[in-house]
Amino acid sequence: MTDLANALGLRLPIFLAPMAGDVARPELVAAVSEAGGLGQLGGGYLAPEALRASVRAIRQRTDRPFGVNLFVPQRTSIESQHVDAFRKVLAAYYAKLELAQPDPIPESEDHFEQQVAVVIEERVPVFSFTFGIPRDVQLEALRKSGAYLMGTATSPAEAMALQAAGVDAVVAQGWEAGGHRGTFLQPTDEGMLGTMALVPQVVDAVSLPVVAAGGIADRRGVRAALALGASAVAAGTAFLATNEAALPPAHREALRGPRAAATRLTRVFSGKLARGVPNRFMDEVERCTAVVPPYPITHHLTRPLRAEAARRSEVDYLSVWAGQCAPMARRCSACDVLLELAAGIGNGP
Amino acid sequence: MTDLANALGLRLPIFLAPMAGDVARPELVAAVSEAGGLGQLGGGYLAPEALRASVRAIRQRTDRPFGVNLFVPQRTSIESQHVDAFRKVLAAYYAKLELAQPDPIPESEDHFEQQVAVVIEERVPVFSFTFGIPRDVQLEALRKSGAYLMGTATSPAEAMALQAAGVDAVVAQGWEAGGHRGTFLQPTDEGMLGTMALVPQVVDAVSLPVVAAGGIADRRGVRAALALGASAVAAGTAFLATNEAALPPAHREALRGPRAAATRLTRVFSGKLARGVPNRFMDEVERCTAVVPPYPITHHLTRPLRAEAARRSEVDYLSVWAGQCAPMARRCSACDVLLELAAGIGNGP
Repeated sequence: MTDLANALGLRLPIFLAPMAGDVARPELVAAVSEAGGLGQLGGGYLAPEALRASVRAIRQRTDRPFGVNLFVPQRTSIESQHVDAFRKVLAAYYAKLELAQPDPIPESEDHFEQQVAVVIEERVPVFSFTFGIPRDVQLEALRKSGAYLMGTATSPAEAMALQAAGVDAVVAQGWEAGGHRGTFLQPTDEGMLGTMALVPQVVDAVSLPVVAAGGIADRRGVRAALALGASAVAAGTAFLATNEAALPPAHREALRGPRAAATRLTRVFSGKLARGVPNRFMDEVERCTAVVPPYPITHHLTRPLRAEAARRSEVDYLSVWAGQCAPMARRCSACDVLLELAAGIGNGP
Repeated sequence: MTDLANALGLRLPIFLAPMAGDVARPELVAAVSEAGGLGQLGGGYLAPEALRASVRAIRQRTDRPFGVNLFVPQRTSIESQHVDAFRKVLAAYYAKLELAQPDPIPESEDHFEQQVAVVIEERVPVFSFTFGIPRDVQLEALRKSGAYLMGTATSPAEAMALQAAGVDAVVAQGWEAGGHRGTFLQPTDEGMLGTMALVPQVVDAVSLPVVAAGGIADRRGVRAALALGASAVAAGTAFLATNEAALPPAHREALRGPRAAATRLTRVFSGKLARGVPNRFMDEVERCTAVVPPYPITHHLTRPLRAEAARRSEVDYLSVWAGQCAPMARRCSACDVLLELAAGIGNGP
């Protein structure tokens, strides 16, 4: 048992990596917390009241600690003609699914401000964030509410920036991790470190507990991460196919498919680099020369397309976020996965 | 101690990753073997007689087991106008260093055939290879000579292909590794797995001993790799700055420099993806639109440039191969590095 787990009142130093979107429902978050780990809700896309409802749904299912993860808004800008050009690229796909194309929705600072307010009002035990660092006043208010604060780093430099901001722990997100990269400092290449290289360098760079994420899918990965100096591990992909995860059938199919072994980073779904199982949309849109507008513009421009594709089980147009351990994701209960991961604690290699 | 180490007559399941070029001289190879690990000579670029001389130089320094690694030639083709266009790109750099630009040297199957003959004649204890799989007759002759055979895999699919070819062990080379990627099967994305995700999947895919490589630079990395199921580890970057390594001063400077934390893969030096510390040549040539001819054409086209740059300590034009643990490379003796790595054996996290 690690100090971090004790500090959070957990039986196991094993976290459910926050997965924004429809996969990590309150059922999955609560199941992981109930089993002794830390369930985390990926709340980035949720409107404030939907976030509140999810938090309460988790509390209805468990009185154990859990976490909420949010996306820190980043200042971005792009010329409107680039947005128009990218919407033209998407037009063909919307036509194919007989959908009307949405207008771009501008990023709103308020959205995050309101989400944070919900986390504070609901007294969420653990607050983790990615894509940047909240403003000092926000961190201070969260701290006052009793929240344990964790920031996401993809390099030693980012870990040091988080420590300077006063977080309680750092999540070291390795190259292998599925979904969005948390990278928020330049140069990007520093944010592409594999977990094996990243964790020891982050452990040496900061004096805080480090949570290892990326490529950890069974007891061997947990043992390895702890050996590297991590105080806890975060696993997402390993829980993707569990009964408690609301994985649409088409996603499940893609996870079992031949391309699950070749996940790669792409910007074409959201405007931000994220790792997923390649499909036709990724292949085609990555090839075209149009500039991909930054997050969250592209996220909003492709969202109805992905939702309709999921409804139709149309694998070609889905964003199937998954890490490099996608082929290891098993269909079983969240508790089974947690028990497998827990077997890696406290034993030597 | 692992079965693999016993099979090879080693005191430690720690290998010096083969580093082709001037760095891993017989002095370094012998030092690692003398200290109880497996020194490996990166012989890929050596002419047959130079290879023979290096092997004998190693034997003069140690009677312990050592290995030789060679590049398996791959069929490649490119239109001459692409080669001409790339030579035009290089012309400016040759002019800057007041050098005559070399003519392209065609790949020769004979070169590898002759290198293999030397390995057989000199009865090298361990033969490892990368970039592909030698022909059956070559593997058979090597086996008859008593060589222990290791192939390099960057995906479970490649590991299975190596097992089918009858190797004795598989080196699983993770994304973090410095120098050339061993990838030889498509799709490339399957060859970009981080060590944390790659090793368990390779261990599950084959029934052979697996050597973990990529991102392993101290006792923590060794402990982690063994926890993932590896039977031994290979470390290269950790030995780069040792006294026994013939690292040119300019390389040493680059390893200590700010960009060492942002190593990335590039094709511009050799025509094959390899990880190194970014510099001006990488930045500029990657930006230009010319097609980079495949290995070994580009290797030969840039070689005199890199040699002269090393002579002049001109960091801007060097290929400074290094892995994602470059910032962890310490200037000390090879034995000190081996002792640090050895501390990760047999202890729990």
